[in-house]
Amino acid sequence: MILVNGRPDDCVDALDRGLAYGDGVFRTLRTQDGQPQWWRDHYARLAADSAALMLTCPDEAGLRAEVCRVAEAGPGIVKIVLTRGIGARGYAPPRDQACTRIVLSTPLPAHARDDAPNAVAARWCTLRLARQPRLAGIKHLNRLENVLARAEWNDPAIFEGLLRDDSGAVIGGVMSNLLMMKNGELFTPDLGQCGVAGVARTRLLRAAPRLGIPIHIARLSSDAILAADEVMICNSVIGVRRVGRLDDATWSPAGWTEKLNNALYEDSD
Amino acid sequence: MILVNGRPDDCVDALDRGLAYGDGVFRTLRTQDGQPQWWRDHYARLAADSAALMLTCPDEAGLRAEVCRVAEAGPGIVKIVLTRGIGARGYAPPRDQACTRIVLSTPLPAHARDDAPNAVAARWCTLRLARQPRLAGIKHLNRLENVLARAEWNDPAIFEGLLRDDSGAVIGGVMSNLLMMKNGELFTPDLGQCGVAGVARTRLLRAAPRLGIPIHIARLSSDAILAADEVMICNSVIGVRRVGRLDDATWSPAGWTEKLNNALYEDSD
Repeated sequence: MILVNGRPDDCVDALDRGLAYGDGVFRTLRTQDGQPQWWRDHYARLAADSAALMLTCPDEAGLRAEVCRVAEAGPGIVKIVLTRGIGARGYAPPRDQACTRIVLSTPLPAHARDDAPNAVAARWCTLRLARQPRLAGIKHLNRLENVLARAEWNDPAIFEGLLRDDSGAVIGGVMSNLLMMKNGELFTPDLGQCGVAGVARTRLLRAAPRLGIPIHIARLSSDAILAADEVMICNSVIGVRRVGRLDDATWSPAGWTEKLNNALYEDSD
Repeated sequence: MILVNGRPDDCVDALDRGLAYGDGVFRTLRTQDGQPQWWRDHYARLAADSAALMLTCPDEAGLRAEVCRVAEAGPGIVKIVLTRGIGARGYAPPRDQACTRIVLSTPLPAHARDDAPNAVAARWCTLRLARQPRLAGIKHLNRLENVLARAEWNDPAIFEGLLRDDSGAVIGGVMSNLLMMKNGELFTPDLGQCGVAGVARTRLLRAAPRLGIPIHIARLSSDAILAADEVMICNSVIGVRRVGRLDDATWSPAGWTEKLNNALYEDSD
């Protein structure tokens, strides 16, 4: 089911700035029995991303009601897209324009089910992310880098591609954030220059201190990843997964993935 | 009038990848009496940009017929948008998928009329363009940098903002390419790292040698721009315009703008 500005619809105005310029933001979240998972974090992130792009974020209660309305009966995925609305020709953003609001549900993909493998295979992508601090961290609609990176492989055995920026710093996965454990401490890439700061990452950074795990948001090299005790990816759909293989490198489980994945679900929404 | 995949329509599927990821390319061109201006160059550029993103470009004759169908009776603007079509959730681009094709007309804006001032005022933008060679030059739908840069000013007396990349190299205008004359030679920024390679710029680079003007595609600093004999912007809608003022700097006409603007129109499409 798709709601466009609150009404069941399957299309969007051809003059929408989301289409013309990717002028908007989005979220992808899980639902269970008609309720969004981690809603408070998702809404906070949507509001922050909207503010960064000077978009008018819809009010929380109304948006949550739309998410619940489209959600499947069992487990599922809901995507929220906010755009700057319909625009005349030209880049100048209209002031105080109501956003276009698209809320849609899709069934839970097989790779997100509870019985999906806990360990995944990954590869290094060739594409290097450009560094744009004005857009870094934001889950905006300008995602051609992700599309080009994901086009680098067809092998269904490869679950995720890891991206570096043009300085060689590791940033994250095409569709996930990256984490690694080394000597009992948690490291995740700094996203001040590029990448998307996902809600699962935010929740893990909040949960780790509760588990007594020191956290480091840092510049990480490819070598640092390869030298990790455990490498993980995370997002709101799959939770935390262990990277068992990264091109030719392999890791045996060190036990951190389960611990962190459980912690993800500990605090309520 | 708007044609979506050849049929009059005013909306696009809410699952289109153009909306989800900015996964597509576009062109903006002038029409006169129902015919596109510089069609050969525009189609060549559209085909090249499509190929760079592995999009299937529609055939030339059919697309041209659609442009003519939507074109206004007098002078007008036509925009062509090609996207990777409707997608399932996920970045992976479907193989050999037919594009979504949007062709729409708008009236000629006042600033593009023949009686619009030949000289314009510009400013330096604060935003620095990120360098992504995989997307450089392509007129793709990921244009948030342009939106943010254009949001830097409201003063209607300022026609254009000039953009530098994060290394300080001048790249072009928010909606135009940049040219400068120095000692009788034409300079325009190298677009190998970022920026959009417009058709007007291509035509000028082809025309200048015919006029005996040497051309340089180069890294240009802000100081080089300020030291120019004449600074110009160009695109397919406005032709060539002289920059008469750039923040506090001003220039008197040196005669190159008219010469180059005339040359733009010399070879037929």
